[in-house]
Amino acid sequence: MSERPLILITNDDGVSAKGLKELTEVMRLFGDVTIVAPDSHRSGMSNAITVDHPIRVIKTIDEEGFQVYKCTGTPVDCVKLAFNQLLDRMPDFVVSGINHGANSSISIMYSGTMGGALEGCIHGIPSIGFSLNDYEPEADFSRAKIYVARVFQQVAEKGLPPLVCLNVNIPKGEIKGIEVCRQTTGKWVEEFDKRTDPHKQDYFWLSGYFENHEVDVAETDIFALQNGFVSVVPVNVDMTCYQTFESMKSWRF
Amino acid sequence: MSERPLILITNDDGVSAKGLKELTEVMRLFGDVTIVAPDSHRSGMSNAITVDHPIRVIKTIDEEGFQVYKCTGTPVDCVKLAFNQLLDRMPDFVVSGINHGANSSISIMYSGTMGGALEGCIHGIPSIGFSLNDYEPEADFSRAKIYVARVFQQVAEKGLPPLVCLNVNIPKGEIKGIEVCRQTTGKWVEEFDKRTDPHKQDYFWLSGYFENHEVDVAETDIFALQNGFVSVVPVNVDMTCYQTFESMKSWRF
Repeated sequence: MSERPLILITNDDGVSAKGLKELTEVMRLFGDVTIVAPDSHRSGMSNAITVDHPIRVIKTIDEEGFQVYKCTGTPVDCVKLAFNQLLDRMPDFVVSGINHGANSSISIMYSGTMGGALEGCIHGIPSIGFSLNDYEPEADFSRAKIYVARVFQQVAEKGLPPLVCLNVNIPKGEIKGIEVCRQTTGKWVEEFDKRTDPHKQDYFWLSGYFENHEVDVAETDIFALQNGFVSVVPVNVDMTCYQTFESMKSWRF
Repeated sequence: MSERPLILITNDDGVSAKGLKELTEVMRLFGDVTIVAPDSHRSGMSNAITVDHPIRVIKTIDEEGFQVYKCTGTPVDCVKLAFNQLLDRMPDFVVSGINHGANSSISIMYSGTMGGALEGCIHGIPSIGFSLNDYEPEADFSRAKIYVARVFQQVAEKGLPPLVCLNVNIPKGEIKGIEVCRQTTGKWVEEFDKRTDPHKQDYFWLSGYFENHEVDVAETDIFALQNGFVSVVPVNVDMTCYQTFESMKSWRF
């Protein structure tokens, strides 16, 4: 067995995305990598799994000799398949991204990038989702990669608590440092674009903008990003609200 | 405007599922209902949203005169569309289910039923996801409905804290009562069924079984279910792990 750690890489922008290649370049510094990623983009797929049709996988070897698996499923399917069918042993780390576009605040709920990281975490593997606050397919990841390496090195050194993974968002442009943050409160205000097709039937495109309910609040991930800092949010797989759990015990059903 | 509360109903088993009809029957006792649900099942869709193709909606009126919208999207799409395009005003409650099959423990992560409830909660509406621990399409919901009504009445009376919704799982068979619980620690152990098609290509079916890491632990949702109690888990939209948030502040990036 190799002495270098085994790092599983996935994403939700698909196996051909620039962000995946950039993340792979960084991870090769730290270990052996295997890529298991969707064959095309799966943005907004959250923690979705494929239950009603089968999944197919195509294996290739990239120019550096690493195994790359293209999967017809979601990011979570990719991680599950890697653990159960594709890898010879469980990986030491799961990293997901680098997403083209931020996954700060409530976007963690809808993010396929974080779906991949959460699935690694559920299985006890230290896992990190990385996102760059730039949606462009040809985004410049050169500064981001330095911070991806820094965060990864700290996790490799210190580990993560059980059932906690990291949601790392990286600003576009100059970067001033790294801040440990909490998830900003806010929501997407959906403005559907309603159109009519040539057969006079209506259809809706999801669009919308983010509404921040904690503008300029220190320690929130969006505040960090807006001020040029990388935000690192530790994310809990256990979604129980313990405060409400205690207070609800007095309810008489 | 009606004095009766407006209750938005969705699910992930699709608009024709028995569980949706049963939930609707209960909710009609408490308010005016509008149903916005997927046109067929969307199990395992989690909080997924549809970003890469448009959504279509068909409106019908059911035998009781209530509006029913069949949507080509996910449960989260249904709730977003309801809020933004389909309802005349924001609902007073969002209820999702009754799912055919439990969504206890980690299944909350993958559940389209809870995706619908979480989306309501993100928008500030008291929201509840209901699931029956019985996967049968013709499951008997008669006992479950009594407990759906009890939980709903308590929420209507006491409200829920901001950004907290409920994950309610109901046992099959006799029911002894209702327990406020926390999310059980565990994971799905995925055993993919690998097959070969007539063209000699491999494909994988997701299957697997649940591995409980807290067997017989009081106050966990699975323990309650296994002992004949309805489990009520308060669920947090804020996924930040605050304990780790504090401890990570000493990390030197």
